Amino acid sequence: MNKPYNGQFHIELLNPNYGCAVRVTETIARLRTEYQDLEVVDTPMFGRMLLLDKVMMTTERDEFFYHENLIHVGGLAHPGPRSALVVGGGDGGSSEELLKYSTMQRVVMAELDRGVVEASKQYLQKVHRGAFDDPRLTVMIGDGKAFVERTDQRFDIVALDLTDPLGPSVQLYTREFYEACKRILNPGGVLTLHVESPITRPQAYQRIVATLKAVFPIVRPYMVYVPIYCAWWGMATASETVDPLALSEAEVERRIAERGIGDLQYLNGAVYRAMLSLPNFVRALLAEPAAVITTDSLLVDEVGDPTFKYDLVARK
Amino acid sequence: MNKPYNGQFHIELLNPNYGCAVRVTETIARLRTEYQDLEVVDTPMFGRMLLLDKVMMTTERDEFFYHENLIHVGGLAHPGPRSALVVGGGDGGSSEELLKYSTMQRVVMAELDRGVVEASKQYLQKVHRGAFDDPRLTVMIGDGKAFVERTDQRFDIVALDLTDPLGPSVQLYTREFYEACKRILNPGGVLTLHVESPITRPQAYQRIVATLKAVFPIVRPYMVYVPIYCAWWGMATASETVDPLALSEAEVERRIAERGIGDLQYLNGAVYRAMLSLPNFVRALLAEPAAVITTDSLLVDEVGDPTFKYDLVARK
Amino acid sequence: MNKPYNGQFHIELLNPNYGCAVRVTETIARLRTEYQDLEVVDTPMFGRMLLLDKVMMTTERDEFFYHENLIHVGGLAHPGPRSALVVGGGDGGSSEELLKYSTMQRVVMAELDRGVVEASKQYLQKVHRGAFDDPRLTVMIGDGKAFVERTDQRFDIVALDLTDPLGPSVQLYTREFYEACKRILNPGGVLTLHVESPITRPQAYQRIVATLKAVFPIVRPYMVYVPIYCAWWGMATASETVDPLALSEAEVERRIAERGIGDLQYLNGAVYRAMLSLPNFVRALLAEPAAVITTDSLLVDEVGDPTFKYDLVARK
Amino acid sequence: MNKPYNGQFHIELLNPNYGCAVRVTETIARLRTEYQDLEVVDTPMFGRMLLLDKVMMTTERDEFFYHENLIHVGGLAHPGPRSALVVGGGDGGSSEELLKYSTMQRVVMAELDRGVVEASKQYLQKVHRGAFDDPRLTVMIGDGKAFVERTDQRFDIVALDLTDPLGPSVQLYTREFYEACKRILNPGGVLTLHVESPITRPQAYQRIVATLKAVFPIVRPYMVYVPIYCAWWGMATASETVDPLALSEAEVERRIAERGIGDLQYLNGAVYRAMLSLPNFVRALLAEPAAVITTDSLLVDEVGDPTFKYDLVARK
Repeated sequence: MNKPYNGQFHIELLNPNYGCAVRVTETIARLRTEYQDLEVVDTPMFGRMLLLDKVMMTTERDEFFYHENLIHVGGLAHPGPRSALVVGGGDGGSSEELLKYSTMQRVVMAELDRGVVEASKQYLQKVHRGAFDDPRLTVMIGDGKAFVERTDQRFDIVALDLTDPLGPSVQLYTREFYEACKRILNPGGVLTLHVESPITRPQAYQRIVATLKAVFPIVRPYMVYVPIYCAWWGMATASETVDPLALSEAEVERRIAERGIGDLQYLNGAVYRAMLSLPNFVRALLAEPAAVITTDSLLVDEVGDPTFKYDLVARK
Repeated sequence: MNKPYNGQFHIELLNPNYGCAVRVTETIARLRTEYQDLEVVDTPMFGRMLLLDKVMMTTERDEFFYHENLIHVGGLAHPGPRSALVVGGGDGGSSEELLKYSTMQRVVMAELDRGVVEASKQYLQKVHRGAFDDPRLTVMIGDGKAFVERTDQRFDIVALDLTDPLGPSVQLYTREFYEACKRILNPGGVLTLHVESPITRPQAYQRIVATLKAVFPIVRPYMVYVPIYCAWWGMATASETVDPLALSEAEVERRIAERGIGDLQYLNGAVYRAMLSLPNFVRALLAEPAAVITTDSLLVDEVGDPTFKYDLVARK
Repeated sequence: MNKPYNGQFHIELLNPNYGCAVRVTETIARLRTEYQDLEVVDTPMFGRMLLLDKVMMTTERDEFFYHENLIHVGGLAHPGPRSALVVGGGDGGSSEELLKYSTMQRVVMAELDRGVVEASKQYLQKVHRGAFDDPRLTVMIGDGKAFVERTDQRFDIVALDLTDPLGPSVQLYTREFYEACKRILNPGGVLTLHVESPITRPQAYQRIVATLKAVFPIVRPYMVYVPIYCAWWGMATASETVDPLALSEAEVERRIAERGIGDLQYLNGAVYRAMLSLPNFVRALLAEPAAVITTDSLLVDEVGDPTFKYDLVARK
Repeated sequence: MNKPYNGQFHIELLNPNYGCAVRVTETIARLRTEYQDLEVVDTPMFGRMLLLDKVMMTTERDEFFYHENLIHVGGLAHPGPRSALVVGGGDGGSSEELLKYSTMQRVVMAELDRGVVEASKQYLQKVHRGAFDDPRLTVMIGDGKAFVERTDQRFDIVALDLTDPLGPSVQLYTREFYEACKRILNPGGVLTLHVESPITRPQAYQRIVATLKAVFPIVRPYMVYVPIYCAWWGMATASETVDPLALSEAEVERRIAERGIGDLQYLNGAVYRAMLSLPNFVRALLAEPAAVITTDSLLVDEVGDPTFKYDLVARK
């Protein structure tokens, strides 16, 4: 028998028709937090990995694909961000990117699950890289939705760094919540978030972007490849005034330098514009009518909805 | 038991540490050709799929990710291609893209395996879309390497549409073969090919690009997402004069229209430039020294080489 | 890459912690019957296979493990069976074993799903081996539970050849249904059935046997290995008078010969006694108290019941 | 998505057409010994598990299926064993069973890999249950084959507790080695071993038994179900005089009591005879001619031999 292909793998289905397998070599931590199962494991390909409820969240080696691009497309488009809110993001990776801005004075992380923060502090140094020790970061443990709805603080950047809308976080993928986020943005502020994948969950992707467009005049979907998501993924910025498309490649490079955002493993001026360039099939998906998500009409778990399609956009 | 997650899947490992699973619903054809196992199956996500030796080759719904981008980055950069050679590409998808050019007078497909051509003609209409009936296409069944080495024909475009360098095609990923390809290019001609993935096979990626650079003055690696390759993939053009970077977004759009290349599902002017924009970690990979591949120093099957690393490029 | 380990597999989880994978080479038929998904596929290891709702039901090469032992433990213990009812068993394999008895005058198959019978007639000749053409067999398409409750026919043998109690058939694993079966047994008749696995579903196994004991004075659990069930499996006979333990090895051999039951691939006199010999851990499982299953207290789907344990019986 | 079915599994292929998956929750130890990869993990179904080179070796909860039956079929058949050799068996489970015999004065374990012994002492208390502290046990770290060939010690029982004949241990599945074992048996001694599975590796099973018969006049194959081997498994005794078939059920019970072999989770008098009762298809397999294994004609790795069949014995 060819032993190299036996062994331990994390198996994860992106939808009932497609999944991926990542070899795991060691369990570093495994516990039940107040809200979910949390695992930290080692993998030969990605280094240390965080999983929540058996879904891959982030890893040492591929976190930059996700965190750099979730934060800096909106962050660089903003004229000079001084305050930011991260909803979720307990691993610290998004906060660490926000704290790179020389202009940044205050970052608030509203993370529901204290266990995620504690495990990340202890095991994911290469993800947060000391962000938790930065005096500009305030970690609030509690319901991010309630925080957004009730706070009188205002922010230049609001980043939604959430789990997929297939569990508890489904309420944070609604028009009502996006409106609440809009209320806590300073004038000229920008919301940034991931919006599922047009490849593996096209209907969720369509509905989330349609919902953003129902709330914000300027919505810019962009494409990011994230290895542990096993697919090309969607992200977006939403704002009343901030438009990433207004930045030239040179201007992006200038701002990266000016704002002292060093050590970028993915993003550069050319790639910034590239991510905002949508393939025709994604443009076509977004041109189709899609139902706005509201608290009365939530994203259904695809498994629960027999009519849900996972077809890759079919050739005409 | 939750039956939705039982069932038949095609399991494929991209490397010993990472793989993917695609649900299969039906076998359409299954046979042994003169050279390899060939399967045509139906999948809920991708439609009909062609597999060779148990590796996913192309599908009805995702073939455009691969074929459009393999052909048109080089094809549009060329001032006006009138002749093309496809080495491999028995499914007809690359030829179909080449035949879209109103300037194209002659396409030669040099495919080793008659069985692939016959199965594609019969089962993959949505991939070749009638290309085999186009009088401008000549199908030569035989060793593409020998053809390239011996032919006195010359071509504006040579497209290498090959299986991974892990089996018989390993000889077609060498300096010697790239030099042979160079010899059969017309002045101003361009070679276009896929070069493995910097994510799942970074060392193979580095060596293939290094080998192209040892033969051609202008080598342009670019990134394409191909769903059934389960990773972000590398492609490249190589030429003495043709440089895709010289085309503006508008010029790409102009040439697409002028040359009558309709029905593109992925490629447009913005995406053309986007693909050529490499993330920093890919730039870093390509900046590292890498051994040129020669017939005396072939790409080793990663499995055969214990020193081969699959690590995603590690964070500094 | 080592291709031998890529390819198509049927993946099936026996419980959330244990599953198996069987290579599939070809789809012979795939359809939606009135009640369930039905697939007929070819496999290198087991030959042709029938699947219902993505669960392996029977195969050409391993069907004898299941059918011989489901039927003949009770059948040989009966003094001379002349009539039999198969509830379920649409593949014809159980009926074929019953029809081997020279004494058998009448076999009724009460199968809910006409589609299973039709597919088996067409594709599973090596399972039913012509049983459907035997004039002694009557196939009644309809609800087996209703048939048992309403018929005024009586039988020497009632065989429950059902899907797992995890879906529609859950109502046929209840005290009420076993009492209904008892009513339609002739004096001296015997009920025979499979009772899940003490390895993969120990609690279901305990409860089913406890329920039989609440209805019948003589219940004889026995162990059978069935390859496609991926575990050692439980079966049982239940009767007011018939006791398989009363037969000597020689008597079993004598009856096999006398009754003309030829071509047995698994069962012989020695194996008959062997199957009825329970390992200590199974004896211990059956000695534990277990709740009788009633229509008011059905077997819960393990997945639906967080308290359900899949632990292999733990060492003291 | 239904998270219960995501997560970490150990995947193991028994042959290229059949495999199993066991959920893993934690890595307890992972190291490279002098000879092989060694892992100790926790599993919900089987408790703590030992793996060598990515193959499941033993677990806390299912070890008794293997160790009791490997040792006691031969051990109880022996008139009164006072000395025993275990070749391999570094987990201590076989030695622990041998040390249960009140008559046992001396057990030698010849284990190649010190790392296996050390990991088992530290992590597998529930497998060896203190055997390593028993003054009657001598652990010799070294090549078991060389030990058997050179020692002048003699034993009443020689137990081969080896890895599959697919790697280094292939030399210990040969006529030459069985002859060496025969030389070190006391008069009236017995060899006991596992002989692969007639289900998943029928040809290996046939050849190993044929090889034993070429060396010993009395060879008794028997069947044991071992959950982590994912199949019904073969074991055998071989001797010049000892015949397990000569023991009645009562005699087995008497010897278990007399010799003080308590706490048996699988074996009892009835099961002892049951295991020795072979189904017809196994009898048929063993009746076929099979090539004796010699150092000049080793068992080939099935993968290396395209002619190797994994078919379940086909119905005539």
